[in-house]
Amino acid sequence: MRVVAADAGVAGTHLLGDLYGCDAARLTNREFLERLAVEAARRAGATVCDVAAVNFPRRSPEQPSGITVVAVLAESHLSIHTYPEAGYAAVDIFTCGESCDTGRGYAYIKEQLAPASDSVTAIVRGTPRPALSATQ
Amino acid sequence: MRVVAADAGVAGTHLLGDLYGCDAARLTNREFLERLAVEAARRAGATVCDVAAVNFPRRSPEQPSGITVVAVLAESHLSIHTYPEAGYAAVDIFTCGESCDTGRGYAYIKEQLAPASDSVTAIVRGTPRPALSATQ
Repeated sequence: MRVVAADAGVAGTHLLGDLYGCDAARLTNREFLERLAVEAARRAGATVCDVAAVNFPRRSPEQPSGITVVAVLAESHLSIHTYPEAGYAAVDIFTCGESCDTGRGYAYIKEQLAPASDSVTAIVRGTPRPALSATQ
Repeated sequence: MRVVAADAGVAGTHLLGDLYGCDAARLTNREFLERLAVEAARRAGATVCDVAAVNFPRRSPEQPSGITVVAVLAESHLSIHTYPEAGYAAVDIFTCGESCDTGRGYAYIKEQLAPASDSVTAIVRGTPRPALSATQ
């Protein structure tokens, strides 16, 4: 999937992906997720300016810790939030301008997290709204 | 606007706001935008874990610098990307669970940036997709 916004001066494309049935071990591996965010940004053609990551407290001793990774991009941001207890990850890739391909970045994340299923929406930002595509 | 996801165990609500015709001076004020992100998160009922901010290079000497602020929340993230040359700001408030009110956080950002117009979409994450509401 390649989505390019019409007005490159302001507009961007924002891909929202929900991944279900991921391997919990990968969703709790902070170093893996940080590398994943950086490499996905690179594959999307974006430039990483900063990376912030947080481990969240376990809800109970039996439950693994979820992790948030946010990469601040020269083109906007890429985020991954994980909920290992549910096998779920929420991914956002938001890039402005027409030089990036959010779909390529998402394809890499999906390959690495190997969800049983996923749901993707791409939205044009900075122009009158409508969802550009809703696939998979 | 109040949007609450059905399954608080995993699901969250993601508000995407595009603000047009904002005052350029506010869109170039990094300290103001950092405070704005933190206060908006607080008003949404979220907990800020970390804040990352980046100033982007001017495209030309005549153009002001855009700024990105990303607040990592215990509930997901809040981001503001500004394009002062276009008077435009892209705002995301993504919170998981049912304890937060993204609409309250957005209302505060809108009040402070005072756009001539804006466009908002709220999406449920972590459940089969559709846009919950598209208003304004």
